[in-house]
Amino acid sequence: MLYTARCEEFQTEKGQQQAVMMLENFKIEGLVVIGGDGSMKGARALAQKGVCTIGLPGTIDNDLAYTDYTIGFDTAVNTALSAISNLRDTSSSHGRVTIIEVMGRHCGDIALYAGIGGGAEIVIVPEDPFDPLDVCRQIVEGRNKGKRHCIILLAEGAPVTSQELSEFIRKHTAMDSRVTVLGHVQRGGSPTSFDRMIASRMGAYGVKILMEGKSSRAVGIRGNEIVDYDIFEALSMERKANEELIELSRILSI
Amino acid sequence: MLYTARCEEFQTEKGQQQAVMMLENFKIEGLVVIGGDGSMKGARALAQKGVCTIGLPGTIDNDLAYTDYTIGFDTAVNTALSAISNLRDTSSSHGRVTIIEVMGRHCGDIALYAGIGGGAEIVIVPEDPFDPLDVCRQIVEGRNKGKRHCIILLAEGAPVTSQELSEFIRKHTAMDSRVTVLGHVQRGGSPTSFDRMIASRMGAYGVKILMEGKSSRAVGIRGNEIVDYDIFEALSMERKANEELIELSRILSI
Amino acid sequence: MLYTARCEEFQTEKGQQQAVMMLENFKIEGLVVIGGDGSMKGARALAQKGVCTIGLPGTIDNDLAYTDYTIGFDTAVNTALSAISNLRDTSSSHGRVTIIEVMGRHCGDIALYAGIGGGAEIVIVPEDPFDPLDVCRQIVEGRNKGKRHCIILLAEGAPVTSQELSEFIRKHTAMDSRVTVLGHVQRGGSPTSFDRMIASRMGAYGVKILMEGKSSRAVGIRGNEIVDYDIFEALSMERKANEELIELSRILSI
Amino acid sequence: MLYTARCEEFQTEKGQQQAVMMLENFKIEGLVVIGGDGSMKGARALAQKGVCTIGLPGTIDNDLAYTDYTIGFDTAVNTALSAISNLRDTSSSHGRVTIIEVMGRHCGDIALYAGIGGGAEIVIVPEDPFDPLDVCRQIVEGRNKGKRHCIILLAEGAPVTSQELSEFIRKHTAMDSRVTVLGHVQRGGSPTSFDRMIASRMGAYGVKILMEGKSSRAVGIRGNEIVDYDIFEALSMERKANEELIELSRILSI
Repeated sequence: MLYTARCEEFQTEKGQQQAVMMLENFKIEGLVVIGGDGSMKGARALAQKGVCTIGLPGTIDNDLAYTDYTIGFDTAVNTALSAISNLRDTSSSHGRVTIIEVMGRHCGDIALYAGIGGGAEIVIVPEDPFDPLDVCRQIVEGRNKGKRHCIILLAEGAPVTSQELSEFIRKHTAMDSRVTVLGHVQRGGSPTSFDRMIASRMGAYGVKILMEGKSSRAVGIRGNEIVDYDIFEALSMERKANEELIELSRILSI
Repeated sequence: MLYTARCEEFQTEKGQQQAVMMLENFKIEGLVVIGGDGSMKGARALAQKGVCTIGLPGTIDNDLAYTDYTIGFDTAVNTALSAISNLRDTSSSHGRVTIIEVMGRHCGDIALYAGIGGGAEIVIVPEDPFDPLDVCRQIVEGRNKGKRHCIILLAEGAPVTSQELSEFIRKHTAMDSRVTVLGHVQRGGSPTSFDRMIASRMGAYGVKILMEGKSSRAVGIRGNEIVDYDIFEALSMERKANEELIELSRILSI
Repeated sequence: MLYTARCEEFQTEKGQQQAVMMLENFKIEGLVVIGGDGSMKGARALAQKGVCTIGLPGTIDNDLAYTDYTIGFDTAVNTALSAISNLRDTSSSHGRVTIIEVMGRHCGDIALYAGIGGGAEIVIVPEDPFDPLDVCRQIVEGRNKGKRHCIILLAEGAPVTSQELSEFIRKHTAMDSRVTVLGHVQRGGSPTSFDRMIASRMGAYGVKILMEGKSSRAVGIRGNEIVDYDIFEALSMERKANEELIELSRILSI
Repeated sequence: MLYTARCEEFQTEKGQQQAVMMLENFKIEGLVVIGGDGSMKGARALAQKGVCTIGLPGTIDNDLAYTDYTIGFDTAVNTALSAISNLRDTSSSHGRVTIIEVMGRHCGDIALYAGIGGGAEIVIVPEDPFDPLDVCRQIVEGRNKGKRHCIILLAEGAPVTSQELSEFIRKHTAMDSRVTVLGHVQRGGSPTSFDRMIASRMGAYGVKILMEGKSSRAVGIRGNEIVDYDIFEALSMERKANEELIELSRILSI
């Protein structure tokens, strides 16, 4: 356990030189770094200093373009689902609009997956244009069709805060609205089978290519295959919105 | 399912007359009302209008003086415990002060039970005097003793908001501090064994005394016995702080 | 962590002398033993050899007469409840009799609590007379009233094994019957709030009376109060069947 | 809810004619059947009788060759993981060999995924040759390396029953061994995010191709893409052992 959470340190020249020295002291010949954007950049810096280093995508945000899934994402979504299930009880008994803000930085995947899986009426993600009046229209239409309440999943990277949206809804519909910000509850807990499995597969793969002499590679999963890219190339790939799922969340919420 | 959540309606003369009429229409001879303060008062009003009515304590807040436990409290505490367990992962890996705000209105029991069970360093409840500088002192002492991080359970009825406390801590200690407000996640989910058991016992007891012709009684649990009081008397009892548990939370956090 | 699970060793003269020696070596002046019947007897033996020793009731079985609840019981019941909830899905979709065998040695409390909380149609415990033909009669009556399936909670101490009962039911009713033996799944997992709370209270109480110079005491909970008895006296008390709950399980299963 | 669990009925000529008639009565123009092998064959029979019918793979067994994952599999594996986590507590405190038998009919995937994710020392599946003496050798080697206990995941389709294996181990090693058969606990419970997501995607896809006039198609997932095959073709594909995962379970158990 190295406590690298404060990535700033790991990203300075001094921090990296210290890391190289420590690895030499302990005669560590290869390194597998698990983390998000920042850890990956640190891994690449170490590789450039001659340490055989491989990166594994460890973040709940699922915001790395080169891999379909990051380690931790599935656990975070299941935690969000469990919260939605609890919140539905109060939301329906009180006939309210319930806004659930989930994490993901600039990526809407936690909101999208938890929204589809949890049967949310509306999902708001940064990857998809958003008009608050549209949201109000959907809420009122749902009400007219007999829906007693409404659950909205809001990604933290969306162009509106949960508090702002809640006030807007109270003003423009006849309905009461409440906010729950899930926060760091999503960044912990016992990992799911899916996360353990991709972590095990990526970890074994990472060790294998390290032993083959590779370095500065980012390991990921594409389709159902474990793959690896040059770290620099991997980090410069551009994430595309998952149009299939955005469309699916619309279809299922009707 | 009657959707009485908006208790205001149930507490008006008109609402109560409507209730009496409906009960007569459906030839319902006895009524068991489950709820908190508001529902209990409504139950008493119905009893005064001649409907045989019994009240059961259904609230996560555990804020009714006449009963050791209310139905829903144990489930809420277990939900809070599960959240604490998740939050501990980020709290310890980032070496932070993590403030977790839990519900309970004017009652600190959710914070107290979840704090003791979850191993919180500090528990702040309305029943116990509180000085923010004391809290900072405890945090710094813990840090000096080698504790990398600190978890604070804060009851919503405490004399400070979680946001205010977080800013105060950041200003008066060298540590970073984050807030999670659990919110309505605590008011839902599958009930625990303890809640199902006391609900079953109180429910059967309520039906039994209804059949014996009693009315306007509040059912509760004292020690491990099911008991009943006059609703008015029950609601006018004064809650006392649980000194044993407040002391216990202090001893265990050292 | 002392790995005392194999209590036989702890109950021999030689094992106890070794324990006394170890305690002296480490200058341990007082001991809190957590366990069931066997550990309690070992604790008493140590106390008789002059070591200040207190016993805490740690067993999922809830089979100690001197305490309302043992540490671990509530967690085991909640695990059983979660299993019942899963098993209900297959039981109802296949229209079967589902027999769930739970632990508890000679005590039926896990079966009784999980049965009441989980809405079992039939609960079979060692404390209550049992006739397999009665069980078949209840199943057929339920079927005639429109119940598609039937869940039976069977305590391991009951006068019939789950396999025998299943065959008897298949022979004497027109229904298919399946068995699930929960086993050691019940003896693990993250403890519930209730168990953490009584463990914390009993632990603090045990340390307090040790510091007051007491020894050879068994700590327990009665009503909602922590109490202590002489270990010998505590172990010789006779468990009584919980008639209220046995009756309750009958009422709720109609 | 049609209660088609007893697939025999759905597979007779009479049962199928009745189904066609009912669909006509209710003016249902298209049908999505969710189930395993048996339901799929019924779906194909209906399609041959002129009803537009699509099949979705719904079984915890993950035993259909044409799709990477079946709906229900991920939930079953996570339930097994949670049981392993509980069983580990008793297994390690008692220093035992713990054999956990999981479902999957002729397919070892639940055992394989739960074994890798749950850190089992040994995984026994029908797809991989098995020698009980090898298992004993591994247990003894583990013991010699300092492993206090050993967890074995056994698929129900393996060439040995859990009871037989347990007796063999007790006879050929110095260690105690216990069996837990998880049973139908695996076939229920709240679905995971992964299962909800593939079910939602396959469901929407199935409706889309029904509306395009397709029939007698089996919907599945390959890589991360939703795909469809002729039902007959899909059911005649041959499952291959997942060599990557079998190898991974060996590497991780060292």
